[in-house]
Amino acid sequence: MKNLLVAQSGGPTAAINATVAGVVTAAMASAKVDGIWGAVNGIKGVLEERFVDLRKQIANTQDLDVLCQTPAAALGSCRFKLKNIQEDDSQFKEIIRIFRKHEISYFIYAGGNDSMDTVDKLSAYCKEQGITDIKVMGAPKTIDNDLVGTDHCPGFGSAAKYIGTTFAELERDCHVYDTKAVTIVEVMGRNAGWLTAASALARNNGGSGPNLIYLCEPAFSIEGFLKDVKKELKEHDSVLVAISEGIKDAAGSYISEQVQSGAVDTFGHSYIAGSARVLEDVVRKEIGCKVRSIELNLMQRCASHIASAVDIQESRMLGMTACQMALEGESGLMAAVERVSNDPYEVRFVGIPVSQVSNQEKKVPRDFINEEGNDVTDKMMAYLNPLIQGEAPVIYENGIPKHVSLY
Amino acid sequence: MKNLLVAQSGGPTAAINATVAGVVTAAMASAKVDGIWGAVNGIKGVLEERFVDLRKQIANTQDLDVLCQTPAAALGSCRFKLKNIQEDDSQFKEIIRIFRKHEISYFIYAGGNDSMDTVDKLSAYCKEQGITDIKVMGAPKTIDNDLVGTDHCPGFGSAAKYIGTTFAELERDCHVYDTKAVTIVEVMGRNAGWLTAASALARNNGGSGPNLIYLCEPAFSIEGFLKDVKKELKEHDSVLVAISEGIKDAAGSYISEQVQSGAVDTFGHSYIAGSARVLEDVVRKEIGCKVRSIELNLMQRCASHIASAVDIQESRMLGMTACQMALEGESGLMAAVERVSNDPYEVRFVGIPVSQVSNQEKKVPRDFINEEGNDVTDKMMAYLNPLIQGEAPVIYENGIPKHVSLY
Repeated sequence: MKNLLVAQSGGPTAAINATVAGVVTAAMASAKVDGIWGAVNGIKGVLEERFVDLRKQIANTQDLDVLCQTPAAALGSCRFKLKNIQEDDSQFKEIIRIFRKHEISYFIYAGGNDSMDTVDKLSAYCKEQGITDIKVMGAPKTIDNDLVGTDHCPGFGSAAKYIGTTFAELERDCHVYDTKAVTIVEVMGRNAGWLTAASALARNNGGSGPNLIYLCEPAFSIEGFLKDVKKELKEHDSVLVAISEGIKDAAGSYISEQVQSGAVDTFGHSYIAGSARVLEDVVRKEIGCKVRSIELNLMQRCASHIASAVDIQESRMLGMTACQMALEGESGLMAAVERVSNDPYEVRFVGIPVSQVSNQEKKVPRDFINEEGNDVTDKMMAYLNPLIQGEAPVIYENGIPKHVSLY
Repeated sequence: MKNLLVAQSGGPTAAINATVAGVVTAAMASAKVDGIWGAVNGIKGVLEERFVDLRKQIANTQDLDVLCQTPAAALGSCRFKLKNIQEDDSQFKEIIRIFRKHEISYFIYAGGNDSMDTVDKLSAYCKEQGITDIKVMGAPKTIDNDLVGTDHCPGFGSAAKYIGTTFAELERDCHVYDTKAVTIVEVMGRNAGWLTAASALARNNGGSGPNLIYLCEPAFSIEGFLKDVKKELKEHDSVLVAISEGIKDAAGSYISEQVQSGAVDTFGHSYIAGSARVLEDVVRKEIGCKVRSIELNLMQRCASHIASAVDIQESRMLGMTACQMALEGESGLMAAVERVSNDPYEVRFVGIPVSQVSNQEKKVPRDFINEEGNDVTDKMMAYLNPLIQGEAPVIYENGIPKHVSLY
């Protein structure tokens, strides 16, 4: 008896379930796999033996389609880092005991940096202990697109498509009045500006898109920002600004913390507003025109109703790749996308040692950002464009997309 | 020579351009109409004679389709109230002079309360002055759904579909962790809770939807809210709350203003946060669990990529109705939807005297809200459901929906 276990971890995306669908698809197609199990709430659920039978939960190919269009981990998630083996290997012993008890030979873990750390430690432990009949594989996931070793991450393309579309719609919305107004839109990303860059996709069909785009990589200066906004206001009635949640000054301090250090609410709490809200106040005080801030908030990571077809299909392929490679005897790898060319868009699905991936961050290269630090370059657009192509099909019922929870 | 002029006014919606498309469609089909003109920035643009030739801007039926999927007024908007005729009729004289100069016999104005006030005053002025060869008609528009005289307003159904879908996605997103957390989502609506009620549509396909829904009509009590949230937290890990922007206490004061009267930012400004943000702080202080607030902000009114097919088609029909009735000699009416039955959904398009519409607000009836004031009833669901059916087709290019600006 050889069973397969799949689990999900980290923050939600619109594409993480397509990876599970890919794992299940490859497992269903294999004669080597008996039970196909899901762990609820990631590695935490493994330790608690909270398993669901995915052969029952996903009974046919239509169930796979509904799974692919369901946002956020259908198996639940966790934020849970395994201890260092050198210090305490009890968690690893326990996981292996549980795997043995349930005859689990293949474990696929989809997630971001922390999850790849889990895959790294667990596969290293198996190697160290001479355990060769349990294969541990990773599949990438993060809207932040900050995992190294893969050209891009599942979930990012769909978030980028949502962001590009939303900026195009906001541009129309903000354009209707002939009075001076500034709209500042905050996009997720504490340390990597990939998602904020996606706002430029709003220009794809002739729209002017955001007038200014500030990623979190270059140092942000409030003086420079005000100068840029004033210049744009001279030329346009409506000025649309995209900024990363994590914009920082030259010393590396978050702009939000720096500016509002004195703000307290009625309870005496320090009022931690987002970077857009902080800049809204700066514009109101220093320029005095109509100004509004918007946070794209959770919607940018869970808007599966406008998922990128390329993203969902690649996410599924990465799940299949992780499963397939495990079935072929690999362990300690993360499935990854290698971009062969941009035009035509051509990729290969590969496995890379997960030790090269975990605990690192892929930031936006400097030449993807313009010299002034207030827009992106053609290199960024060439990188982004293939990832948002096509609209993933959505099954609606009663006017609302269908979703599934697996537990 | 008989020309037709169409203009748009008030806040953006995803469906307001379908009304213009309907006006243009009916005008194109008529032998009575020579020029088809659009005024830029509403009645303000009429006074400034800022006209565009819509026969050139909308050259074929495909252009009409792209117009229908473009959010926010493609002709621009304004917030401009005409003076009272009794006090000063100079604006009315000027409008008639401009209409005569451009041989405009039909004027169709799409908008909300203020726009219907304009239609009312202008048509009354014509009647008073014995001007019978200029017909003035209104077409409804508002995501707030607060216009009287029509069963519902174009723009509302699409916003409701976006809100229902987004709550379904947020529910998935918030459900992934097994820790106690409260998510409070603020929906537009200062005086009418229709949009907030649409959050319940997230339950249409088996999802649990928001645990609590507070519209702005019943008096809101922070004590009652905390009691409700605590009860839900006993039963669920993740508690999702929908609240109207305009929740008020029993004395009619906005909760946001009341709670945060002492809050100042670093500039010494009073910090005007939304109602969700205010309740976020209340939950953090009084309950102490993880809590987050989200504003659906402008996205809920301009997300035309997920427009309701029923809404867009009805919006187009209302534009056609307004135009057709003007061509048939009517004036001073607003095109409206009369609901004949819910199941099957059956409507008639009618014209009602605009004087019955302007300067009034349609609030949510008490029996559409449950007794406790923290959810909606089956009556509300029966009202809402037909309005979000079907997905309006969207033409994408380069991964992003196509939009058009007419000026």
